[in-house]
Amino acid sequence: MQHSPLYAGVDVGGTKTLMILAEQDGTILSEWRVASDAQTDPETFFGGILDELRREVAKQGRDVSALRGIGLGLPGVIGPAGILTHAPAFPWQETPVADILGQRFDGAVYLDNDVNVAALGEQWQGAAQGVRDFLMVTVGTGIGGALYLDGRIYRGAGAAAGEIGYSVIAPPAALLSHNGTAPPAAVASGDVFGQFEQIASGTGIGRLAREHLTRCDRSAVDASLIAQLAGGAPEAVNARHVLAAAAQGDAEALELLRLPLDYMAIGIANAVSLLNPAMVVIGGGVADSGELYVAAVRERIAALTPIATDVVAARLGNRAGAIGALAGVIPNRV
Amino acid sequence: MQHSPLYAGVDVGGTKTLMILAEQDGTILSEWRVASDAQTDPETFFGGILDELRREVAKQGRDVSALRGIGLGLPGVIGPAGILTHAPAFPWQETPVADILGQRFDGAVYLDNDVNVAALGEQWQGAAQGVRDFLMVTVGTGIGGALYLDGRIYRGAGAAAGEIGYSVIAPPAALLSHNGTAPPAAVASGDVFGQFEQIASGTGIGRLAREHLTRCDRSAVDASLIAQLAGGAPEAVNARHVLAAAAQGDAEALELLRLPLDYMAIGIANAVSLLNPAMVVIGGGVADSGELYVAAVRERIAALTPIATDVVAARLGNRAGAIGALAGVIPNRV
Repeated sequence: MQHSPLYAGVDVGGTKTLMILAEQDGTILSEWRVASDAQTDPETFFGGILDELRREVAKQGRDVSALRGIGLGLPGVIGPAGILTHAPAFPWQETPVADILGQRFDGAVYLDNDVNVAALGEQWQGAAQGVRDFLMVTVGTGIGGALYLDGRIYRGAGAAAGEIGYSVIAPPAALLSHNGTAPPAAVASGDVFGQFEQIASGTGIGRLAREHLTRCDRSAVDASLIAQLAGGAPEAVNARHVLAAAAQGDAEALELLRLPLDYMAIGIANAVSLLNPAMVVIGGGVADSGELYVAAVRERIAALTPIATDVVAARLGNRAGAIGALAGVIPNRV
Repeated sequence: MQHSPLYAGVDVGGTKTLMILAEQDGTILSEWRVASDAQTDPETFFGGILDELRREVAKQGRDVSALRGIGLGLPGVIGPAGILTHAPAFPWQETPVADILGQRFDGAVYLDNDVNVAALGEQWQGAAQGVRDFLMVTVGTGIGGALYLDGRIYRGAGAAAGEIGYSVIAPPAALLSHNGTAPPAAVASGDVFGQFEQIASGTGIGRLAREHLTRCDRSAVDASLIAQLAGGAPEAVNARHVLAAAAQGDAEALELLRLPLDYMAIGIANAVSLLNPAMVVIGGGVADSGELYVAAVRERIAALTPIATDVVAARLGNRAGAIGALAGVIPNRV
């Protein structure tokens, strides 16, 4: 046992990074969180992760050479050569993560985006065990999607597959162009593009609630369960408060969730019609806040597509990414 | 050459069936169309296709045993066991096509739905040659979709993948439910579901045009290029007349195409965001009617998703299905 190989799964976030050190059979030896210093340069950042992992290996009484592979989930697009782009949480542009790690570590490196590793995690140890075809959707600050098709992550032609957050749904009348060929001004100007994520994400739910409460008079705010849950301060309200109130049957919260739920259900239903997945796994902070959210999305989806699918809540919470990163790097995983 | 194996590609439609007889290298020996007798029983129907193919083999001066494989594209869902369901063009319910053919033919049989074989055809000899990831959309009487992902047709968990025609887009205000949990009445009643296909298909374009012209007075109908192309009879107008008029820059036709084009572009753009395909191939009668349609959809898509893709017209027209059925059955195809 002492000489058996070790593997690490790392879920890199803009503020926190979760690390898991495990045996090849998946037995977890250690699991811990460190602050992400997003302002540092990539070499220091990823070098720091390696140092952290090696310290933990030593702390476990093992030689650092026992660490044979590292899987990383990253908040951005990972190109085929292991180059990270589109990572708004970091000030970097094109970051050659595979090269940076390869210069400092000679074991296996597996890199993927944060939603893909969350899907791998749910498939290995969570809600999608044994499922060969599923869609993973994460609803938190933003909206993420991952496609697990025919037993593997499908990344698309440019490693950008899964962007259900870019869905265009329920466009306003302004969307519709006024001649047969030119794209409508509202579309070209971006009024429509991005609307889905702005409404259906946790950020969107929180914003809708704050906008609503600032339109209410003082007595209505005082009577608002949502505002009470946020300590009486409308400006402090976020999606969690809305979902907590809705879970108690609060009418105001249920009404506020209507549009975000309709949007999310339409976006997922369209993906279900297109992909015919056996399952849709919904994770992220909003979905993790309680069974109400997933149940409401599930009920709507059934009315929006004739293609049957199981709509379930993710099971691994914010550990899914690190567990999936581990799943991606452990060889011959059972 | 005389003793080399022969293969057949057959595209079964509700009114016509296209047959191709070819050598293993794809060289076409014969290509012909027969009427589909959709009212007969499945045994007679598929037995008739076999008889037709064997007659043609004999006509080519070859022994019937030279026919080693038959690929069929069918207008419905083909389950894993080769059972055809959801085929509205036929009065049959669950048709065991693989069994019926297997009892009468001992060569290889390849079965797939009509859009999947069209995608295979375009990938082999048409617009998507060398492309590993693309979405095929056919716009005709209805709307069909096929996913060619990572070098092969992706069928989903229940062999129903590709149903972009079920997309829900631009729902009316009635879609939005009035509480946080129940699906909206308009959705549950089907007012929204199916709307995409009703508007964006060729059938939808023709219906929109007929509805418009019946609202016009006699002088407006007389002045309408669309009506003229239909021989002056508004009730005879179909999508072809609208597209032909639009190709001449006719303002009425361009205005009528606005909504169907917006819907189609949104449906495809959402699929592009989800799948990140290298290419979208648009085929079917509407797309085949001229470059205007595909160009207008292409322009809109570029404004509706940040994921880049090539939007191109299909090249094989209504031969794509039979060519793709051939592609599906020829072994070790280069």
